[in-house]
Amino acid sequence: MDSPYLLFLGDVPDQLSAKTAEGVVRWRPERVLGQNRMEGCGADLGVADISIPHAAAKGAKTMIVGVANSGGVLPGHWSRSIVEAMELGMDVASGLHMRLADQPEIAEAAARTGRKLYDVRHPTRQFPTGKGTRRTGKRLLTVGTDCSVGKMFTTLALEKEMRKRDFKADFRATGQTGILITGEGVSIDAVVADFISGAVEWLSPDNDPDHWDLIEGQGSLFHPSFAGVSLGLLHGAQADVLIMCHEPTRPHMRGIPGRALPSIQTCIDANLQAARLTNSAVQCIGIAVNTSGLDPAAARDYLAATEETHGLPCVDPARDGVARLVDRLS
Amino acid sequence: MDSPYLLFLGDVPDQLSAKTAEGVVRWRPERVLGQNRMEGCGADLGVADISIPHAAAKGAKTMIVGVANSGGVLPGHWSRSIVEAMELGMDVASGLHMRLADQPEIAEAAARTGRKLYDVRHPTRQFPTGKGTRRTGKRLLTVGTDCSVGKMFTTLALEKEMRKRDFKADFRATGQTGILITGEGVSIDAVVADFISGAVEWLSPDNDPDHWDLIEGQGSLFHPSFAGVSLGLLHGAQADVLIMCHEPTRPHMRGIPGRALPSIQTCIDANLQAARLTNSAVQCIGIAVNTSGLDPAAARDYLAATEETHGLPCVDPARDGVARLVDRLS
Repeated sequence: MDSPYLLFLGDVPDQLSAKTAEGVVRWRPERVLGQNRMEGCGADLGVADISIPHAAAKGAKTMIVGVANSGGVLPGHWSRSIVEAMELGMDVASGLHMRLADQPEIAEAAARTGRKLYDVRHPTRQFPTGKGTRRTGKRLLTVGTDCSVGKMFTTLALEKEMRKRDFKADFRATGQTGILITGEGVSIDAVVADFISGAVEWLSPDNDPDHWDLIEGQGSLFHPSFAGVSLGLLHGAQADVLIMCHEPTRPHMRGIPGRALPSIQTCIDANLQAARLTNSAVQCIGIAVNTSGLDPAAARDYLAATEETHGLPCVDPARDGVARLVDRLS
Repeated sequence: MDSPYLLFLGDVPDQLSAKTAEGVVRWRPERVLGQNRMEGCGADLGVADISIPHAAAKGAKTMIVGVANSGGVLPGHWSRSIVEAMELGMDVASGLHMRLADQPEIAEAAARTGRKLYDVRHPTRQFPTGKGTRRTGKRLLTVGTDCSVGKMFTTLALEKEMRKRDFKADFRATGQTGILITGEGVSIDAVVADFISGAVEWLSPDNDPDHWDLIEGQGSLFHPSFAGVSLGLLHGAQADVLIMCHEPTRPHMRGIPGRALPSIQTCIDANLQAARLTNSAVQCIGIAVNTSGLDPAAARDYLAATEETHGLPCVDPARDGVARLVDRLS
């Protein structure tokens, strides 16, 4: 996806619905020209409001539909803005479940203008099956006790900190939000099951011996809906290093009332055991905790206790940064 | 898929290419009217040769393209026979990678005649994500040290033996060959990754307390290409009972030269550990070995030694049947 980006929010009702666009602003501010909001929009990214023609005049290359909504449907009354962006020379990217091209007027406009549509939730390329062959370069994978515990955030924070220290390091997106933030990647839970590990091998090919791929994890080996995705991702990543991600206030596995989260240690052990299939030297070097549900004192206590229990650096990437994790890498 | 079946072999060069049709003859002979072979066909199922019009006159409901070939392509010169079958009232089923409807003359004939095309390698329905909720009824899953070690064969043999003993038992197919043999199922490695366990939950829903679903396993937790499929299948099956399948002469994991097979015990332990996520009472009650690569004396020795090492009944389903495994079920 070519930048700079115009972030389209439509008329989503609240800030939460604009999480994807917020991620782009937070992690790739240099690529953002501004936001475009329709009347009634309840979200604000804190960047310049800009009309579609104005964005085009300033050189916007891609308009990102940076929202999530229940059902993943593209509201019909957004089509006019999307068509306008294409007519003014922009490609359009979306992470919604419904494909842009499923709206006939959008498909027609894409054909007419020759602009590209990126439905990042839907991989279009074919992948080979995974082989488990060792690749050159180094790899880090974030894994988790559950879905949505901060794996993407942690991985992006690691990229930022490592680049600051002159590591060669690249974030590798495996979900639609990560892809929209960085402009590339594979929505790994949407590939055909036979090709999970193969898609990750494709995403993180041979590289320089001192280069780090920082691979965004998905799901959890302990989530009964998605563990297959997590395992294929773990094998395909053939990670040298794992970071365990956790959210300490979650009452149950996401979407499964009554199902308790595994302990951090159980989850570290299971991930290391499975990861050894494709990298016998794999290590877990730290724990990243999303403590947003705790007050600052409780967060501090939790991190200190977890660090002592596991003998590993334990940080909240949002509160403390990830410097102490990067200290463990070379 | 409605029976009786006409098994179409085209002009495949050898017996191995007709493995799928052989499976139908072996496991569902009562559904088979005969075989239809083109000039030059090198395979023979040992059933009546029958023309397409003759099969139609005898009431054939579905013509099964019962072959595998390299690349999974449907040869263009088979289309005429497929179209003829539809014109004479038959549906057509295929396990090839290439869809029947990708041949324009086949798609056109299906539209014109209103007959159904079953591309069993390509699931068409949508599945919910898996939830891991306990279902009623009992479930057995075959797992393996590798791909293609006899999981489908073992599962079909269990169904036959259990039905003979008046168990309520149904084979649940998870691969294209199993689907073509039994006429239903889900090609689990072809579903979108997010829905692996959900598809298995759909395939094996609530049932009578004394009913057994016998679920065909796929791949291996130790195969770097397909372990994600195997894990999602294991979680979705929430098996009460596992049977470990093994082939003792395999030099390396299928398709991955240089990668050794896991030991049977390592593989049992890993499967039990992972399976407990959705069924804490899971047990491995036996081992099924494909000894076709050993002479009879060596096979006997291998089975006896394996049985002693693991303290579990160990049989070759093809040589000995699976009665000793069924003895462990109630």
